[in-house]
Amino acid sequence: MNELYYYILVSGTTKGVWNNMKIICSKEDLVNGVQIVSKAVPSNTTMSILECILIRAEDNMIKLTANDMELGIETEIPGTIEQPGIVALESKMLVEVVRKLPNADITIETDDNYQTRFKYDTLKFDLNGKSGEDFSYLPDIERNEAIMVSAFTMKEIIRQTIFSIGVNESNKIMTGVHMVIKNDQLKVTTLDGHRISIRRVLLKNIYNEKEVIIPGKTLSEISKILPTDAEKDVSIFLTNSHVLFEFDNTIIVSRLIEGNYFSVDKMMSSDYETKVTMSKKDLYDCIDRSMLFSKEGNKKPVVINLTDNVMEIKVDSPLGKMDEEIEVTKQGKDIKIGFNPKFLLDALKVIDEENIDVYFVNPKAPCYIKDENDKYTYLILPVNLS
Amino acid sequence: MNELYYYILVSGTTKGVWNNMKIICSKEDLVNGVQIVSKAVPSNTTMSILECILIRAEDNMIKLTANDMELGIETEIPGTIEQPGIVALESKMLVEVVRKLPNADITIETDDNYQTRFKYDTLKFDLNGKSGEDFSYLPDIERNEAIMVSAFTMKEIIRQTIFSIGVNESNKIMTGVHMVIKNDQLKVTTLDGHRISIRRVLLKNIYNEKEVIIPGKTLSEISKILPTDAEKDVSIFLTNSHVLFEFDNTIIVSRLIEGNYFSVDKMMSSDYETKVTMSKKDLYDCIDRSMLFSKEGNKKPVVINLTDNVMEIKVDSPLGKMDEEIEVTKQGKDIKIGFNPKFLLDALKVIDEENIDVYFVNPKAPCYIKDENDKYTYLILPVNLS
Repeated sequence: MNELYYYILVSGTTKGVWNNMKIICSKEDLVNGVQIVSKAVPSNTTMSILECILIRAEDNMIKLTANDMELGIETEIPGTIEQPGIVALESKMLVEVVRKLPNADITIETDDNYQTRFKYDTLKFDLNGKSGEDFSYLPDIERNEAIMVSAFTMKEIIRQTIFSIGVNESNKIMTGVHMVIKNDQLKVTTLDGHRISIRRVLLKNIYNEKEVIIPGKTLSEISKILPTDAEKDVSIFLTNSHVLFEFDNTIIVSRLIEGNYFSVDKMMSSDYETKVTMSKKDLYDCIDRSMLFSKEGNKKPVVINLTDNVMEIKVDSPLGKMDEEIEVTKQGKDIKIGFNPKFLLDALKVIDEENIDVYFVNPKAPCYIKDENDKYTYLILPVNLS
Repeated sequence: MNELYYYILVSGTTKGVWNNMKIICSKEDLVNGVQIVSKAVPSNTTMSILECILIRAEDNMIKLTANDMELGIETEIPGTIEQPGIVALESKMLVEVVRKLPNADITIETDDNYQTRFKYDTLKFDLNGKSGEDFSYLPDIERNEAIMVSAFTMKEIIRQTIFSIGVNESNKIMTGVHMVIKNDQLKVTTLDGHRISIRRVLLKNIYNEKEVIIPGKTLSEISKILPTDAEKDVSIFLTNSHVLFEFDNTIIVSRLIEGNYFSVDKMMSSDYETKVTMSKKDLYDCIDRSMLFSKEGNKKPVVINLTDNVMEIKVDSPLGKMDEEIEVTKQGKDIKIGFNPKFLLDALKVIDEENIDVYFVNPKAPCYIKDENDKYTYLILPVNLS
């Protein structure tokens, strides 16, 4: 029955059927719902229908949908349907309007021309709407095996890897986040040519082997709308071309990035010449300070000089100089090596542990920050000090 | 003695005398002090010395100074002077550096070339400094009668009038805040050609009659650094060309705007045809909503239609429409009048009272929002509805 409706709608013969909608929702539910789906509205588009959020009231469900053709979000909000209908409203305006509504149950009505009235008491707020017949619905994704991850873990995974995706669209694969599921292991990898971030998570169940590249943008939008209730689970469904996330009353569908991800394992080495154990905060504060001297046009590397149990950190730039020593526990050789301080800081920012282990091979080889259980690995290429 | 020092300094014969400074201050005091004086550093200037904060350690006082030639701020911070000296450091960098210092007592040392080292434990932070011989010290303001106002009242006065100064530098007088002191009355006025804001304050003492125009920028910077402790007093000293504010260990000197202020009293009228008493929040929420439809290129007036005890508020724009009714208590005639909603909202935003009285004369004459005690008066010109 539903499919027939969609067919009629898409074929454009529905005029007069889907207008004159009348629904009642609380302001709070409207604000939440609109905010969630607005994350899939593109900021720049020439297609005005893509700027819209679709409100669809049918089958006793009120659904809000937005879709930028790569990422689509749909959420169901509670409310009363007095007359089913569909209307597409410009997202930016809708976000602002619902926020400014009084804190009460709001009646939403559309007329023959899809003009949409938000009503409460003596307040009448009219927005110009569209029929929604051009609207792109979310693709119908086959839901086989659901991979279950807690909302908390999902947020953590994203936060701890997303910072090192590539930003250059000419290398599409680098702009994605690589996820590999094998038995009860989830391995998440990002890289941008200067560094690699890997996060491993133990899942609650055993799954068939799967491997996908999810657009970084999809995951960064998802992390904004994941439930704050950490106990809640997110279900992830994978097909060859799409990924679907489901939580609360929301589904998020995203295209996958096609292609084969980089063979990261071949780049990794477990050999090292120097291992340093140190306070994360000490190193973070020191690198953070050193970044004052690496501004635009003045990108100077931070130089790490390890001798005995002292890590000396130096920057020398036209703006000024810094020199600081941190006490560390060192195994192996002394080493002098340079880094882009931002790459070190990005990794230190997302590590929650109090102490870290840093591994060095030689001044031309990447350093690794990783824990003993392989929960996380951050590989960072050095800068040539010459 | 001080003046002699300055003379030597200004005449440029001090090389070797004022370098090699050595002082010790807590990070917290440095951050506070630098933040306070940085408010007088211009954001755009071609004179690099104006971008600097001067650190001056002499006579057992450590003073920080910044001066953009119109507004100057000087603050004294606690600390130990091991060797007196003066150095000028680029403000933006200094603000960032002191923020990133460890939370401890910091030693600041300058060398022969005014390179300045911030030292704590193993940390050494070097910034390039200047001798400060080109630095413009604050003018020496004669301090006669101090007008005393509490920090709280000062902040209130500024907040409740500053929003309606003119922004166009071609009419310099409008960019200022007019202050008149007469006996124990302070009257503060701003206007921008569309509206007038007046705030009256009862002072604790009786003063000689005085009248000045203070640059709006001076007052908006002052309100950012006024002590949060409401009990504290601010001393205000006036000369013919300058105003000096003093609180805690800080003095702020600003040039006054020359000229005669507008004769606002002549524009005011106490006659009215309609008086409305209403909830401030009701009107605020309603006007706030209506502003969704007055965006760039779509500036539509908000239309107020008063009939009996109902105030109808309407906006009609290409983006959409709004219509809402508010219950009011009305005396006098019905009236229909249009306004730029921003001007109404700006005034409503700074009124703290729960209920307001609004006075109308006719659709071409300004409306007044004012309280019975004349503590505040907001006059707003209407928009022609034609």
